[in-house]
Amino acid sequence: MTHTTQLLGISNAIVDILAHVDDGFLAEIGAAPGSMTLIDEARARAIYAKMGPATEMSGGSVANTVAGFANLGGDAAYIGHVRDDQLGEIFNHDMRSLGVDIRLEPAREGAPTARSHILITADGQRTMQTYLGSCTELAVADVTEETFGAPKAILIEGYVYDIAEGPALAARAMALAKQNGSAVALSLSDALCVERHRDAFLAAVREQVDIVIADEDEVAALFGTGDIDSTLAALDGNDKLFAITRSEKGSVIVHGGKRIEQPADVVNKVVDTTGAGDAYCAGFLYGWANGWPLRKSARLGTHCATAVIQQVGARIEPGLLERFA
Amino acid sequence: MTHTTQLLGISNAIVDILAHVDDGFLAEIGAAPGSMTLIDEARARAIYAKMGPATEMSGGSVANTVAGFANLGGDAAYIGHVRDDQLGEIFNHDMRSLGVDIRLEPAREGAPTARSHILITADGQRTMQTYLGSCTELAVADVTEETFGAPKAILIEGYVYDIAEGPALAARAMALAKQNGSAVALSLSDALCVERHRDAFLAAVREQVDIVIADEDEVAALFGTGDIDSTLAALDGNDKLFAITRSEKGSVIVHGGKRIEQPADVVNKVVDTTGAGDAYCAGFLYGWANGWPLRKSARLGTHCATAVIQQVGARIEPGLLERFA
Repeated sequence: MTHTTQLLGISNAIVDILAHVDDGFLAEIGAAPGSMTLIDEARARAIYAKMGPATEMSGGSVANTVAGFANLGGDAAYIGHVRDDQLGEIFNHDMRSLGVDIRLEPAREGAPTARSHILITADGQRTMQTYLGSCTELAVADVTEETFGAPKAILIEGYVYDIAEGPALAARAMALAKQNGSAVALSLSDALCVERHRDAFLAAVREQVDIVIADEDEVAALFGTGDIDSTLAALDGNDKLFAITRSEKGSVIVHGGKRIEQPADVVNKVVDTTGAGDAYCAGFLYGWANGWPLRKSARLGTHCATAVIQQVGARIEPGLLERFA
Repeated sequence: MTHTTQLLGISNAIVDILAHVDDGFLAEIGAAPGSMTLIDEARARAIYAKMGPATEMSGGSVANTVAGFANLGGDAAYIGHVRDDQLGEIFNHDMRSLGVDIRLEPAREGAPTARSHILITADGQRTMQTYLGSCTELAVADVTEETFGAPKAILIEGYVYDIAEGPALAARAMALAKQNGSAVALSLSDALCVERHRDAFLAAVREQVDIVIADEDEVAALFGTGDIDSTLAALDGNDKLFAITRSEKGSVIVHGGKRIEQPADVVNKVVDTTGAGDAYCAGFLYGWANGWPLRKSARLGTHCATAVIQQVGARIEPGLLERFA
């Protein structure tokens, strides 16, 4: 089977609106620190009106990973739903400028391009209030043999299951993956998302998924386990590849009964954790797609995550791989 | 005369699109390093398509100053022309979030909100390619007794004279200033802008302007002088207040036959010079508006400029004054 692309991402296409806030701000809007909440347009307007001056940057979890993968030199494509508005133009520009092949045209009608209000507190933690807008209109009809192509791997984000046609379009993408010999990677997105779609995720991981990308809380939510030891024990005998991030505790790769532990890099100051997991995923999948050993792939993932938490925003300046030793 | 606002800015309302580029990029698009070039929408699209992933932030020279003035705690208002599109919403949001009173409604038709492609090279210098869009529709009719109010000072940017009705609306604002006892400050914008409008600027500085904000090249262009000594000599006997920035050489305030020299702060690494002069102007005018001595005002200007050149983008996180010792 000839693969014409290394990685095809399917996810919510979002522009981030980043601003620093104090803890009082989170309390005032009723947001739990570190959480991701889906909000409607009215609430998006209300929160934005309360926020201080902001910076805008393309975002979206798996979209960040695809951008990072391309930044590393990987050959990537993307399916996500934006409107033909200025934020949609920004999103597509930033992807294309890294060489990502955008597979869908911007919609000429419907809701505006999605935006996530990313509230960064002094400890570098980000709390997200996300208005999905145009993303909610991503449909099964958008995943065709033409838009899918023949990627070596696809990466779907758990958040896609929040979209009306999300579970169906994910199933369609996984069927096309099987037909094309593409590996299927699933990012679990966040622990609350796992709780919302636990049965669907468990079925997918049992049947179609080859690689699970997640943090330890998400894997624990999936298998209903507690601490990391019980979570890892739950993976005994599971033949899928798990890449599990653990913040300052590093990451663990589990595959075929083996565990590879990768420590985190020492960082002087965490500026903003936005995109840390996405960046790790980009590095790990880049190594995987290029046939690197798992340990080296995990080390590149760590390198990418370390870079992104020392800046504001989830996307990194081009040249990531050049700085990897 | 009771002044209801400290500072009213009248200028181009622009959203910056910032990206790092190498020197080859500037050569390829034929841009002189450090220059500001006005471009049309087709060229804006072409340059944006060539640029790498970018970050968006509100900008515009005097708009940056007004934002900085409000960030310091000053009471500010703003007249600038945006469209009712997403970039216009971003621009107005960022102003309002600092407490700036936006005096014009976004236009419901016409060109899109202005954007400036800010190309940052490794030395921290920025080269600007600006598409004025909606700004070009700012009109005399937008400057009324109602939108003008009764500010203690107004600050007009030289770039306004590039707009079709710019010279006329600047004259109208200066007439209203006289009527309301408002001081008139003029920012000379850039040396090429001074060359485009030298006679108009000279006449304004002779007649209506009280404070001239400029870098040394702009003042030299205005008076046709060469080095800083000949420029300062040209100001002998001039009764206006001049605040002249000189990059790493600091600044000079000239007023009533006196010269006050303010050295620059030592900076480890210049990240991006975007907005340095605007930030200086914000600090200087804040001191002036609050009756501070000129030297202390110049020192606050320097503090603001030092902060802005150590980050990407022209606007600074709130809390600028708290960090001034």
